[in-house]
Amino acid sequence: MSEEAGRVEINAVVMCGGSGTRFWPASRRAHPKQFLRLGGERSLLQQTVERLAPLIPPERVYLLAAEEHREALREDLPHVPESNLILEPAARNTAPALALAARVLGEVNPEAVMAALPADHAIADAEGFRKCLETSARAADEKGVIATIGIEPDAPETGYGYIELAGERGDGTREVARFVEKPDVETAREYLAGERHLWNAGIFLMRPDTLEEELQRQRHDIWAPIWQGLPDPEEPGFSDTLERIYPGLPKVSVDYAVMEGAGRVVCVPGGFGWNDLGSWSALEKLWGLDAEGNSASGRYYSIDSRGNIVSAKGRQIALIGVEDLVVVERDDVVLVCRKDRCQDVRAMIELLDSEGREDLL
Amino acid sequence: MSEEAGRVEINAVVMCGGSGTRFWPASRRAHPKQFLRLGGERSLLQQTVERLAPLIPPERVYLLAAEEHREALREDLPHVPESNLILEPAARNTAPALALAARVLGEVNPEAVMAALPADHAIADAEGFRKCLETSARAADEKGVIATIGIEPDAPETGYGYIELAGERGDGTREVARFVEKPDVETAREYLAGERHLWNAGIFLMRPDTLEEELQRQRHDIWAPIWQGLPDPEEPGFSDTLERIYPGLPKVSVDYAVMEGAGRVVCVPGGFGWNDLGSWSALEKLWGLDAEGNSASGRYYSIDSRGNIVSAKGRQIALIGVEDLVVVERDDVVLVCRKDRCQDVRAMIELLDSEGREDLL
Repeated sequence: MSEEAGRVEINAVVMCGGSGTRFWPASRRAHPKQFLRLGGERSLLQQTVERLAPLIPPERVYLLAAEEHREALREDLPHVPESNLILEPAARNTAPALALAARVLGEVNPEAVMAALPADHAIADAEGFRKCLETSARAADEKGVIATIGIEPDAPETGYGYIELAGERGDGTREVARFVEKPDVETAREYLAGERHLWNAGIFLMRPDTLEEELQRQRHDIWAPIWQGLPDPEEPGFSDTLERIYPGLPKVSVDYAVMEGAGRVVCVPGGFGWNDLGSWSALEKLWGLDAEGNSASGRYYSIDSRGNIVSAKGRQIALIGVEDLVVVERDDVVLVCRKDRCQDVRAMIELLDSEGREDLL
Repeated sequence: MSEEAGRVEINAVVMCGGSGTRFWPASRRAHPKQFLRLGGERSLLQQTVERLAPLIPPERVYLLAAEEHREALREDLPHVPESNLILEPAARNTAPALALAARVLGEVNPEAVMAALPADHAIADAEGFRKCLETSARAADEKGVIATIGIEPDAPETGYGYIELAGERGDGTREVARFVEKPDVETAREYLAGERHLWNAGIFLMRPDTLEEELQRQRHDIWAPIWQGLPDPEEPGFSDTLERIYPGLPKVSVDYAVMEGAGRVVCVPGGFGWNDLGSWSALEKLWGLDAEGNSASGRYYSIDSRGNIVSAKGRQIALIGVEDLVVVERDDVVLVCRKDRCQDVRAMIELLDSEGREDLL
């Protein structure tokens, strides 16, 4: 299908279900990562929706989110209609969440392609991203085809799943041989050198009925409650029934539940300055290095200090002779973490939880 | 002179002129180290005066201090009479300050020995300290004799001046061969092994007329303004004249101006758990190590972090994977400093000063 063949209609489904642990203490349970202004004046979620706007206007952006964030979402995105909130009664990972979205959108607009997108990634080249999205949507407009955007790797990352590519399809997409789990570093190096593996960024496009069929075939335990257990979304009993059955669904990712076993998956390779902002250390790329060799948001003073990531909100930070630290200052807490230990922010949260310090979570 | 020979009358002169740079950001210009509650519930200054009390009651404690700290002194030490404040019109180091004290005390009580003591040191064994002080006072009761208390070293410190001992005098004191400046580490090691060198803790005892004579002989530029330029302390013109002439005095320490060239100096060796609290890293000894191997004042949480010194006032501190840091949190600033770079707190203060951040100083 050529670019001239006209635009495919796309509904964006922005997945806002993040739990807010990776950027603690900036992110909290009540204020997870997608609401953070990590990349500038606008929250990651606002940036996500604004990035889509030239291709997908706010009225076709659906927000897949937790009830507890309803107010924050309304405030962050006043241009997205309130009726576009798809609220998950419980956190059940992406497979049940996207099943729910497909069920709702299948009623609203069964012909439109559904683009499932994370709410909390940074993308430098928005136009490049939209081009990939359009190419993917055209492919996914065919029933039975799931399109994904894979990120061209520039490092042997072990923190991502990979997409192994097969042949070209001639429409800007490639066949997907398989999805592979997070590799060890040696395998990641082979992937990087081989140029046949892309990072799985969790971006998937498909018609609602494509996802329904895949779930019916692969995950009857998700398909049956969502498509058989729920009344039509327009009917009055929908919310109550959803409330009742959703918490019983299995906690499973769409990657694992659907993609790895899907019939026809195609991939559009993308190189648009993607950053999943997986932890504090990812901000170095986003913010860049200043003249003193640190990455900072907020004012700090330093003497002989480099390689640090500083996030200050109220107070001044003063660094003397320190390297490769993450220093985060918020109203109630100060985090000092070795840069290569950012993954252990999660362990700190568990420690605080076990100490009864919900006030800090 | 035996212990039974009766007590020598002592006036304490507590030197409160610290500028508050070493413990920034806990210490500030308006709130220097001596007012900090570093060693517990009481300020270092309060501890200094309380430590003296069984030997020297508050009414014989004189405070040598800057005008700007008058209120803080009154608040910290309500039991010390306001008339015992000896206010320095400008910071001129210890030689002019002690000259001024000797001039004042020479009028008030010329027979009493004057014990010049830093306001901001920690001493674990107060009784042992007072015994040394009594022994020193008995020696200094003889006109012409200056007594000093030297600290028995337990490490090859390069940050202190040393006192080289000569023969025993049979009264618990030893002759002083000479005062030596801060040594290099090799020399410091020799001093430690040789057992003839003590740390100079800046504690000196002498009659007011002894100091007067030494200054008249060695430092006419200090003696003349203080003893000839000033009217009697009781006279109404005293303060105004002091205000006028004091800023013109040379900035010089009593160690350098008087002690190194003094006629008869004797030393009482002391081992009473002295700590001059010269920088944040000195707090490790004062506070000890907790179960996680850190030294802390205030609550913190840590994962795989040891050897850190934490001072938190309001917020929680969270440490992940960090070692040998000083982390200090105050209302307006957070300091993160490598433990072996604590001396550079001074450089940070200069940086802040040059950046016009007096609000943080």
